[in-house]
Amino acid sequence: MKKLIKGGTIVTAADIYKGDILIEDERITAIGAQLQSSDAEVIDAEGLYVFPGGIDPHTHLDMPFGGTTTKDDFETGTIAAAFGGTTTVIDFCLTSKGAPLSDAVQTWHAKSKDRAVIDYSFHLMISETNDEVLAELPEIIEKEGITSLKVFMAYKNVFQADDGTLYRTLLSAKKHGALVMVHAENGDVIDYLITEALAEGNTDPIYHARTRPPELEGEATGRAAKLAALADSQLYVVHVTCEQAVRQIAEARSKGFRVYGETCPQYLVLDESYLEKPDFEGAKYVWSPPLRKPENQDVLWNALKSGELQTVGSDQCSFDFKGQKELGRGDFSKIPNGGPTIEDRFTILYSEGVRKGRLSLNQFVDVIATQSAKLFGLFPRKGTIAVGSDADLVLFDPNAERTISVANHHLAVDYSAFEGMKVTGEPVSVLSRGQFVIRDKQFVGKAGSGQYLRRNRFAASEPPAPESRTISASR
Amino acid sequence: MKKLIKGGTIVTAADIYKGDILIEDERITAIGAQLQSSDAEVIDAEGLYVFPGGIDPHTHLDMPFGGTTTKDDFETGTIAAAFGGTTTVIDFCLTSKGAPLSDAVQTWHAKSKDRAVIDYSFHLMISETNDEVLAELPEIIEKEGITSLKVFMAYKNVFQADDGTLYRTLLSAKKHGALVMVHAENGDVIDYLITEALAEGNTDPIYHARTRPPELEGEATGRAAKLAALADSQLYVVHVTCEQAVRQIAEARSKGFRVYGETCPQYLVLDESYLEKPDFEGAKYVWSPPLRKPENQDVLWNALKSGELQTVGSDQCSFDFKGQKELGRGDFSKIPNGGPTIEDRFTILYSEGVRKGRLSLNQFVDVIATQSAKLFGLFPRKGTIAVGSDADLVLFDPNAERTISVANHHLAVDYSAFEGMKVTGEPVSVLSRGQFVIRDKQFVGKAGSGQYLRRNRFAASEPPAPESRTISASR
Amino acid sequence: MKKLIKGGTIVTAADIYKGDILIEDERITAIGAQLQSSDAEVIDAEGLYVFPGGIDPHTHLDMPFGGTTTKDDFETGTIAAAFGGTTTVIDFCLTSKGAPLSDAVQTWHAKSKDRAVIDYSFHLMISETNDEVLAELPEIIEKEGITSLKVFMAYKNVFQADDGTLYRTLLSAKKHGALVMVHAENGDVIDYLITEALAEGNTDPIYHARTRPPELEGEATGRAAKLAALADSQLYVVHVTCEQAVRQIAEARSKGFRVYGETCPQYLVLDESYLEKPDFEGAKYVWSPPLRKPENQDVLWNALKSGELQTVGSDQCSFDFKGQKELGRGDFSKIPNGGPTIEDRFTILYSEGVRKGRLSLNQFVDVIATQSAKLFGLFPRKGTIAVGSDADLVLFDPNAERTISVANHHLAVDYSAFEGMKVTGEPVSVLSRGQFVIRDKQFVGKAGSGQYLRRNRFAASEPPAPESRTISASR
Amino acid sequence: MKKLIKGGTIVTAADIYKGDILIEDERITAIGAQLQSSDAEVIDAEGLYVFPGGIDPHTHLDMPFGGTTTKDDFETGTIAAAFGGTTTVIDFCLTSKGAPLSDAVQTWHAKSKDRAVIDYSFHLMISETNDEVLAELPEIIEKEGITSLKVFMAYKNVFQADDGTLYRTLLSAKKHGALVMVHAENGDVIDYLITEALAEGNTDPIYHARTRPPELEGEATGRAAKLAALADSQLYVVHVTCEQAVRQIAEARSKGFRVYGETCPQYLVLDESYLEKPDFEGAKYVWSPPLRKPENQDVLWNALKSGELQTVGSDQCSFDFKGQKELGRGDFSKIPNGGPTIEDRFTILYSEGVRKGRLSLNQFVDVIATQSAKLFGLFPRKGTIAVGSDADLVLFDPNAERTISVANHHLAVDYSAFEGMKVTGEPVSVLSRGQFVIRDKQFVGKAGSGQYLRRNRFAASEPPAPESRTISASR
Repeated sequence: MKKLIKGGTIVTAADIYKGDILIEDERITAIGAQLQSSDAEVIDAEGLYVFPGGIDPHTHLDMPFGGTTTKDDFETGTIAAAFGGTTTVIDFCLTSKGAPLSDAVQTWHAKSKDRAVIDYSFHLMISETNDEVLAELPEIIEKEGITSLKVFMAYKNVFQADDGTLYRTLLSAKKHGALVMVHAENGDVIDYLITEALAEGNTDPIYHARTRPPELEGEATGRAAKLAALADSQLYVVHVTCEQAVRQIAEARSKGFRVYGETCPQYLVLDESYLEKPDFEGAKYVWSPPLRKPENQDVLWNALKSGELQTVGSDQCSFDFKGQKELGRGDFSKIPNGGPTIEDRFTILYSEGVRKGRLSLNQFVDVIATQSAKLFGLFPRKGTIAVGSDADLVLFDPNAERTISVANHHLAVDYSAFEGMKVTGEPVSVLSRGQFVIRDKQFVGKAGSGQYLRRNRFAASEPPAPESRTISASR
Repeated sequence: MKKLIKGGTIVTAADIYKGDILIEDERITAIGAQLQSSDAEVIDAEGLYVFPGGIDPHTHLDMPFGGTTTKDDFETGTIAAAFGGTTTVIDFCLTSKGAPLSDAVQTWHAKSKDRAVIDYSFHLMISETNDEVLAELPEIIEKEGITSLKVFMAYKNVFQADDGTLYRTLLSAKKHGALVMVHAENGDVIDYLITEALAEGNTDPIYHARTRPPELEGEATGRAAKLAALADSQLYVVHVTCEQAVRQIAEARSKGFRVYGETCPQYLVLDESYLEKPDFEGAKYVWSPPLRKPENQDVLWNALKSGELQTVGSDQCSFDFKGQKELGRGDFSKIPNGGPTIEDRFTILYSEGVRKGRLSLNQFVDVIATQSAKLFGLFPRKGTIAVGSDADLVLFDPNAERTISVANHHLAVDYSAFEGMKVTGEPVSVLSRGQFVIRDKQFVGKAGSGQYLRRNRFAASEPPAPESRTISASR
Repeated sequence: MKKLIKGGTIVTAADIYKGDILIEDERITAIGAQLQSSDAEVIDAEGLYVFPGGIDPHTHLDMPFGGTTTKDDFETGTIAAAFGGTTTVIDFCLTSKGAPLSDAVQTWHAKSKDRAVIDYSFHLMISETNDEVLAELPEIIEKEGITSLKVFMAYKNVFQADDGTLYRTLLSAKKHGALVMVHAENGDVIDYLITEALAEGNTDPIYHARTRPPELEGEATGRAAKLAALADSQLYVVHVTCEQAVRQIAEARSKGFRVYGETCPQYLVLDESYLEKPDFEGAKYVWSPPLRKPENQDVLWNALKSGELQTVGSDQCSFDFKGQKELGRGDFSKIPNGGPTIEDRFTILYSEGVRKGRLSLNQFVDVIATQSAKLFGLFPRKGTIAVGSDADLVLFDPNAERTISVANHHLAVDYSAFEGMKVTGEPVSVLSRGQFVIRDKQFVGKAGSGQYLRRNRFAASEPPAPESRTISASR
Repeated sequence: MKKLIKGGTIVTAADIYKGDILIEDERITAIGAQLQSSDAEVIDAEGLYVFPGGIDPHTHLDMPFGGTTTKDDFETGTIAAAFGGTTTVIDFCLTSKGAPLSDAVQTWHAKSKDRAVIDYSFHLMISETNDEVLAELPEIIEKEGITSLKVFMAYKNVFQADDGTLYRTLLSAKKHGALVMVHAENGDVIDYLITEALAEGNTDPIYHARTRPPELEGEATGRAAKLAALADSQLYVVHVTCEQAVRQIAEARSKGFRVYGETCPQYLVLDESYLEKPDFEGAKYVWSPPLRKPENQDVLWNALKSGELQTVGSDQCSFDFKGQKELGRGDFSKIPNGGPTIEDRFTILYSEGVRKGRLSLNQFVDVIATQSAKLFGLFPRKGTIAVGSDADLVLFDPNAERTISVANHHLAVDYSAFEGMKVTGEPVSVLSRGQFVIRDKQFVGKAGSGQYLRRNRFAASEPPAPESRTISASR
């Protein structure tokens, strides 16, 4: 089974050139100026960009939260992702205190197997670091190829771990080649601020933002970065929203520490004022950390441009406005946190980033795909267009104009976070391991075609000898 | 004329994979897993890295300085560059106050034509910005494709321009799409410190370093960065040596300004103590800015790693110890500034950077080639391995071990700046536009085969549409 | 009862001049060039400095810790303080979870009454902020004049409070006019580091320092400062030891926040290497935070000089080497923390600060007395030499030279932290409220003559009208 | 001749207390709770603050500038100063290149002798550092007691000195015990910006601000601070206006360097928008550096509060709107720079600083008087209320309310910079060396009663022994 993608403008994190791509079975086997193949299906990409499929390093599909469950699961979520140009997602596997980590992993396998239409992998949440957990971790890393561990510094009495747990996780991750991810907000103080706000009758969605001020994100980010530096380990700060947090990450990186940061499309284009929409509509825009004052948007764009932040994740976590977000009417703290972003991440970054001159095309690919592949042990199998890599490709029309809307999105959830936003650029066709998932803007994939990805261990830098580089991500 | 490079491990600023490269005439036309060509010469690259040819953005060949002329010219200099893995150099064209810029350019064409064995281009020095100069600039940029302008903040009464000149150059560069380069040291104060040192009888080479303290480099770097920000223009700081300067560049970049920095191999691996070598040998290590205290080396490596600095240039500027450096016996200020670095830049970065875990392979390629191509308007023709790019390639044995020495280098100059340094990794063969210049460690090129490169204008970020991207560097 | 101190050079935080001081009963009633009084005892101060009595804002007298009790109590401790030029101490009153705050205060009154030879007051420790504590606080502040509250971010499972408690304390303090003090170290991570060190058999005193790295002090200091800023409250960081912490305080102050910092003489003149003294002698130098690398000393001196830090406390907390420090033989974590510093604080600051040109005489008085009086609600009754102020005075011979030693100190504890250190300058006579406590270097006071000081509420800045200023500290 | 000031609330940089002040001849001889004197004139100060007379470290009286001369001279200027609570001014003595420094000093003596109603001294401008100047400097310092030297980094082709001159001045000042003052703006770039603005027809007063952006003040401030640090000398940055400059000063101070900063009342309460007043009225608000965006005001207040800035000068430099400011109609660059501020400096700082809670009373005295006395070698003769000091006193009604206006000011100039501003607090009576200059808000002094002050050399910190402290400022 061969395919030949002809005439596109190929873009990677480093390159941009016109060329043809030959796909045999699941992988790219040749790229050339005028490739010929008598037995390949020819796909015309003239006038289109050919990007590596997006990698979304931060999703919550089919996840229980606050007494309900995200509306989108591994099927609807990955279909929407594919429409949006994303071909790999790494979802967060929640664990329970006291239970074996492997139970949680099995639960997540059950949620995703036979559902996902694109490839996927899991991060593993760590909420305690007792002897059992520390003993089981190496086995999970080895057997499941789960090489990223998430620690929450917020959500007191739910997910929150203390600094000792974070520190031990950092040490264990260093030892076993994993990357520690943190949700960086000061949960203790937030807990108090929420209690006080509710006690004073401040129950509207805007108080979600007011009880999670950016100072508390900056504080926790700096704390995590300092602990990572002290442990000489590696840290990835998820969903960075504000200047305070960016400064802390930049300072650590400047000293040579392996500290990385991710932001999300919602923080790049929306702001705190959305939480004040009338009729409880503000609830649609409840993320943690919350949307911020608009001046932070420039800071985040500059941080992506200068390399202070490395990736853009969606933090997809969708709840219906009706029936789910509404659980928080009269008490903002009961609004399920999160929103639908998996589908629009890729296009928004292109439209607002590249088209508006904030990012180069190479930087766009880097933050939307390549850096996540490298940090999370999927490279070079995923995240680039190169001989030997999986043929995860996005044929992208850079001039298409459309308006984001719940009326045309592909998620199950009942609203769009970016309703009415005009964007330029749209995926036309999307391939996962050489097979069309989206073809001419139609879904042609099937549930279960996505594979679970065992990932390589975290590598601080490339190994030195060419031989060793032929070990790509496990298949 | 075809060549097929088989079995190498191809490395770009983003990618690393095994693959075969097909070259037709001067360019790469295909890359594949198992390319076949009945009529191509096959070159075995098994066990080797295939890197894009290095781009050295900072050389001084055949340059008059202090009453003498650099020992190495465009022939010996580019032969040594090629041995070292470099396939493009951008040399500084010195101008004279009062004379047309075009005179200087013609002089430089005369120096390089029929001599260079690899491709080359010129930066243009700007020392005044009167009406004549400002009127001539657009023409030079257009006709000669010289899209980078150098301003000196030091060398009082020789090259030094005042801040008004720097500012006007920044404005003019912004208007016409050029990148302004600065030598950032406070020349006024240095001039006084030198006068005082000599007056006090402090004439040894070490006083070269003591009269050019890092504070004065940091000061001038910050000044240039602030003026660039105010002008909303683009700035490239050459030969960054110290923490003080790195901090200033990082701060500007963090705010989103287009400020870039280059360091050099000598600052990464040598230090101030070399200037104290007995018998005037310290004179071999006289660069401006000078070598610094060793703690700055880590700062520079971290800055390359975190993206605070973008490129590594050689600042090649060689003078014989005998007869040339000796002009400064008894008066350090008369020692010709500079040293031989063009040949070892590439290997030192690999050996000290990649092998010691300070840079990934992708970062190595980025700083040694790709970023210079992008910043100086040569991309994607130069600086990468991609379909359509010039076949400027380095076949590199990552495990070869050798000792740098004047006994085996290929420059005309009578000493090596890195004498006795053991390095790992060595170019085996080097191609320029598809032709071997170095083959199995032997020079097989010829003087004059290098072409002058007209360069594209500086682009702050990539243009949005794929069509426009097909305009590559002029040929 | 009148005294006339003649011919001294009077120094305050602002002034320096020759003058005579008339004391009537407990207070200063006149200062003049040539004061006459027929009925006053005349004290010759020619050739001496007359300083306001030192205020030590940080002592632990008669305090239980780790199963033992500090060797020095309110009698021996205040006698030594007086010898050293200190006339007021503010001691930490430890509370117990679950018990009324007033119980703790009564315990501390019992310890100090009839013992202290100089005036004293209490800070109050806050380890939880439940409804009972928050309800009792205003009463304590009002009735006892205790207007400073201490929160520990370290000593996990002993004193440590969580961030929510710190934040609520900051809010309560703002409301009621108190100043929150923090011990800023990350107790969670330290707890882990100690456990690990012991598990690996690293039991010597030096591991006390290695398990409390400066990064963890910097982290906690920044965290506390950010919470204080968010709460718009006031914060005082006790015993600042390192650059990391100083930077955080300076940054907050630069933004206008009411954040203050104290360092201690041991951090200004001793360093980490003392912990490596053989035969367990390192245990004498176990403080928390620990002694640091020597380069931090300059940072601390500069911070006092530039106003980034405001005060110098002793953190007096003495344990005998024999029998008490020895509890930690074989397990550094069992070494009682603290050392004898109350007597030498004043002289060391003069000798190392003023004599070595690091502080002006005015700055010396400011950090040793005046700032503490102002921050802790004792001004203008204490902390200066002015008409109406208590006659707490130190007649100081600036040229006396002596060697600090256990052989001549006045504490009960069996060693000196500064054994063998040569200092210049010595108190000759010390008066407390007009009465000699030390006269011609002899103790002439008596136990119980010291009064408990109810203190004024924290005032962010001075009130505007002269009338209101006549309300001085309660008597 | 004795006076007894009874019942006032005395405020110094450190103290605040009720007390009586006895003056004999020119000096304070006693301060007491209830002083009696049978032969003294008694002045009732009940309900008033008694402040030390303000010291204005920055005035331009009777100064030629741009073809005209300031409207106010040493008579009208010092009368207004006295009304405003200022009892000492230090005026800038302009020098001419090529002429002996002593000529300039004699010119300034001629301008001031027999005119000034309060004491005064001179700073000396340095515009070149040739052998003659360097040879003459020590003599001027010794003979004239001029211990502060001013260097301009702006006003290209008029006053501007290059960095070499600044550096040599710093070295010379260090050697001879003087303090170097800088006007910190990048004159080269400003010169270009002005030329361009005028060429584009942008001639209105607002372009004065737009051609002197704060980035250029920050740049020059950082440059001067770095040169001072390198020279290990002392630097005083006059008229700091913006965050960019404050940050540079704070950074230098934090490292322990002797770098000081002054701001002015106009920058604390006015902003850039004043330059846009119609009918050329913006010309009244033309200072260099210019007024800034309002957000800088908080930065400046915080810098005074936290000690990052040390003093407030007026930069008094008045030109009539009619006939003088009007020289710049049609060309903002011809508007004489400066404005009338000498009279309101003191009251504005009290009203906006103390009354609005931004500064404590002690800080107010420190920045308005004491710090200038200390930095400029007048302490303790001037700048405080202490036994032995000159009886330069301000009896101040803290509750008086008035409106600043040209209608009631005491300058000769035809407008007020603060027209219509309501302030609280007003000097009632002002004494200079024991004589009333202002009594019950009436001028009772006489021209020529002010004395020229020879000043002490700059002292980095206080000398150690009490003996040496009795050397006060020369009389």
